[in-house]
Amino acid sequence: MENATGNHRFESIRCSFDLQALMRTLGAEMIEIASGRCRIAAPILPSATQQHGYAHAGLTFAIGDSAAGYAALSLMPEGSEVLTSEMKIHLLAPGKGDRLVATGSVVKPGRRLMVVRADVVAETGEDRVPVATLLGTMVPVAG
Amino acid sequence: MENATGNHRFESIRCSFDLQALMRTLGAEMIEIASGRCRIAAPILPSATQQHGYAHAGLTFAIGDSAAGYAALSLMPEGSEVLTSEMKIHLLAPGKGDRLVATGSVVKPGRRLMVVRADVVAETGEDRVPVATLLGTMVPVAG
Amino acid sequence: MENATGNHRFESIRCSFDLQALMRTLGAEMIEIASGRCRIAAPILPSATQQHGYAHAGLTFAIGDSAAGYAALSLMPEGSEVLTSEMKIHLLAPGKGDRLVATGSVVKPGRRLMVVRADVVAETGEDRVPVATLLGTMVPVAG
Amino acid sequence: MENATGNHRFESIRCSFDLQALMRTLGAEMIEIASGRCRIAAPILPSATQQHGYAHAGLTFAIGDSAAGYAALSLMPEGSEVLTSEMKIHLLAPGKGDRLVATGSVVKPGRRLMVVRADVVAETGEDRVPVATLLGTMVPVAG
Repeated sequence: MENATGNHRFESIRCSFDLQALMRTLGAEMIEIASGRCRIAAPILPSATQQHGYAHAGLTFAIGDSAAGYAALSLMPEGSEVLTSEMKIHLLAPGKGDRLVATGSVVKPGRRLMVVRADVVAETGEDRVPVATLLGTMVPVAG
Repeated sequence: MENATGNHRFESIRCSFDLQALMRTLGAEMIEIASGRCRIAAPILPSATQQHGYAHAGLTFAIGDSAAGYAALSLMPEGSEVLTSEMKIHLLAPGKGDRLVATGSVVKPGRRLMVVRADVVAETGEDRVPVATLLGTMVPVAG
Repeated sequence: MENATGNHRFESIRCSFDLQALMRTLGAEMIEIASGRCRIAAPILPSATQQHGYAHAGLTFAIGDSAAGYAALSLMPEGSEVLTSEMKIHLLAPGKGDRLVATGSVVKPGRRLMVVRADVVAETGEDRVPVATLLGTMVPVAG
Repeated sequence: MENATGNHRFESIRCSFDLQALMRTLGAEMIEIASGRCRIAAPILPSATQQHGYAHAGLTFAIGDSAAGYAALSLMPEGSEVLTSEMKIHLLAPGKGDRLVATGSVVKPGRRLMVVRADVVAETGEDRVPVATLLGTMVPVAG
């Protein structure tokens, strides 16, 4: 799908991402989009922390959920939109470091719903520590 | 528990909440704290929306998770802290309206872990529409 | 809906339940079916226990999932079928006593998917202890 | 850990499994136990089906949950026991074929709780179709 059609698809996904104001507020960037895969990175800004100065679970969830959603959207026909139906997150370690990177992928594609997952790591220099894993359901909606 | 001890407990919970920078970034306020119950409200700021201008799932999750966490913390001994171990969110309707209000409560208290839930509604004037329900696990940690 | 149509609907639900061989194997009975609500009871048979002699989580899940599924099905058009898409269960206490009773209900009905829940209690004489709560998603399929 | 201690550990795990009457009722067998990994297989018996003759979600859940639990237990000190705190299952495809095989593993070990997963496939001859994925939390308890 890494052809003209794929590229067009990915452009409209990047465009949708750019419209997510919360992602901008959190300083998040889409650093990769491919068929069935999406990576979103966000710095751990002082404005996005919890009471101990680590990443708030809301930040971790937000980028994990978006990465999973766009991974699903990348497998849907042009003009589709996708909504999170439900999502479970396990927090595995405190979110501390330079930035968080969420990798979304598709566990089971489907016309009516897609099972998706995302894994979030905290990066500090070369170091990568898993901080969360998400598993959930995306539903396609007419765009 | 609405005695001197309870009040002191609730003060330290409000203090912990005030330290959550992400809550401030999202404009969230703790509008109620009681034994086993916490309510957090947040406006749907233009800076916290998804691509259609509705509340981003990250916002809904963030206040639901915090409300559930502080509901759990309210039942723990002074000096405790609480961490989200895992949390599942179902998105029930688009988050649109004046503000979101999350009500956290405790399904099953415990010394080693607490099962918690939160329900999030969107308020527009007198109108209240359920937008999400959360169910998860909080673990106490030494403060 | 407690009219002729409703009754007919409920008959076909009971018929579907009777076809679930696992329910029979576990000694489970549908003790109530109404619009958006279903109750299933099962004895804690020696053949359905875990290593400590309590109800196996598989038993608790099975009747909770079925109760939630039939609660959803009761709100769908005649001739529909329903499948569990995903289900989360929290085990709250050991499953011990005379029998388990699962009450399924619908959190949010929908044409494409239904959010459902179930609560399972262990009954011993007059005593009722919550042993599990479930929250999940059912999808309608053509019958 | 595949030394004398490991072998002894695994023996007591097999012993615990043999005490799970529901596993026997379902015809389930532990076909592999190693450090952080456990596989359980079960035939799709006529006595464990749902209304369409496929594996009941209760069967799929039961072996997935047990495989995940024993994977966790294999990493705990001798004499430990483990309880499912919460578990989410996604059903990916109908459970049809010769047998189901659940592979449990540990996502994140911990002294107070362990994040676990299990994947269940349906086998028909050489064919393997993913039918479910589970993600949940196990808690160690004194044995």
